[in-house]
Amino acid sequence: MSSEYMIGDAWGELLRDCHAAGLPAGRYYEICERDDGYISAYDAVGFFEGPGGWPPLDRWACEQARGRVLDVGVGAGRFSLPLQADGVDVVGLDVSPGALKVCAERGLGSTVRGTAGDLDDMRRFDSFLLLGKNLGLLESREQGPRLLAALRRLARPGARILGTGVDPYLLDGAVHGAYLAKNRRHGRLSGQMRLRLRHLLTATAWFDYLFVSPAELSGMTAGTGWSVVDTRTDGAQYAAVLALAPDAAPH
Amino acid sequence: MSSEYMIGDAWGELLRDCHAAGLPAGRYYEICERDDGYISAYDAVGFFEGPGGWPPLDRWACEQARGRVLDVGVGAGRFSLPLQADGVDVVGLDVSPGALKVCAERGLGSTVRGTAGDLDDMRRFDSFLLLGKNLGLLESREQGPRLLAALRRLARPGARILGTGVDPYLLDGAVHGAYLAKNRRHGRLSGQMRLRLRHLLTATAWFDYLFVSPAELSGMTAGTGWSVVDTRTDGAQYAAVLALAPDAAPH
Repeated sequence: MSSEYMIGDAWGELLRDCHAAGLPAGRYYEICERDDGYISAYDAVGFFEGPGGWPPLDRWACEQARGRVLDVGVGAGRFSLPLQADGVDVVGLDVSPGALKVCAERGLGSTVRGTAGDLDDMRRFDSFLLLGKNLGLLESREQGPRLLAALRRLARPGARILGTGVDPYLLDGAVHGAYLAKNRRHGRLSGQMRLRLRHLLTATAWFDYLFVSPAELSGMTAGTGWSVVDTRTDGAQYAAVLALAPDAAPH
Repeated sequence: MSSEYMIGDAWGELLRDCHAAGLPAGRYYEICERDDGYISAYDAVGFFEGPGGWPPLDRWACEQARGRVLDVGVGAGRFSLPLQADGVDVVGLDVSPGALKVCAERGLGSTVRGTAGDLDDMRRFDSFLLLGKNLGLLESREQGPRLLAALRRLARPGARILGTGVDPYLLDGAVHGAYLAKNRRHGRLSGQMRLRLRHLLTATAWFDYLFVSPAELSGMTAGTGWSVVDTRTDGAQYAAVLALAPDAAPH
């Protein structure tokens, strides 16, 4: 491929184009490319669905939100907007300017651009959402505990993380097996996916997105103060609830 | 991108996977990449639609088929199968083994692997289909007249080409303008798109697909014996009927 495409906010531009066009089905796609060339597409309208259109695991996890909520990787606000409509105090967090613009256009009152590590701890939360498979934002064996530490720093007593993710060992081995094996050979967790999103002429920079099994997730919490207290599974996908141990006071 | 993906019949594998899964909407996509990085996706179910699901221009053009028909770039057989069901003698032509396998599974009785230039002239045709935007198979300023010559060689007296295509000058200039201009700077027709299709871990080789305006198409027929005798337009897309001039006997 020649180098005429641009590195930029392909994710936010996709959401903005889809929203500006009135959310037509079958026209705007999240096109996701892995660094071994594996490619997939997903109708972007899915990122605007109300609770009835969410995967059941996301619905189950989101229903457990309480108190003040931080929606990590808010996207177009599909989880935050219904919570806000129910009177919940929710903040949408995303690194994508385009995504936050769409959230604002859709009426989400409070958004912050950045990552959990960028937030000061003046404002703390009771629930952290990592929905829509956003347990992937744990990124890697090294980065995951850093995100968990950042969330602990922002946590009120009794806080919970409500996340959904993908168990890499339950994916189609014919398509993904070699990638997982290569990760292991390099000392990485099997499901550390190096991805970028593409939209029209724009691609995001490459980023890591972690498909972490429930067992690996439990292992990753060691020493972070968090522990997995509940899970539900549906094929390769699952939901997990993490809680701070009673002796793990917020920092 | 690392080089672990495979060059192969991504198009045929896509059609086979979609067909084998029972044609679920929203799961299999034709992901098309241009050599400047522009990328798009299209639900593969569309390639299996019956006449009611075809673009109106394809329906209009296909209704004019008569006599023996050669479907150039038959794909999954969406145009050939209804013709065959109506008792038409139709042959499906494609370079993709996977596409031809799907055609056979769906009951298309006669298929040939190759291009029009590969066919001997023992079997001649009254109608040539270049539907589903397959006027793109004209490829380029140089290759287009070769395809037209090959079809003339296979033509019975009074034969017609029934095609649909895209006028590149009516595409969104913000997305495509620079690409068209670069083509012109290099002496190519504006709409000579260098593309490949990707499916899972497989990509086709790069190929040229021509978005040719109706006026350019008319110009391309000079000296080939063919001429454009009818067109219909719908936004950037159009249908064209080409006929052999009375003095252009089959070679």
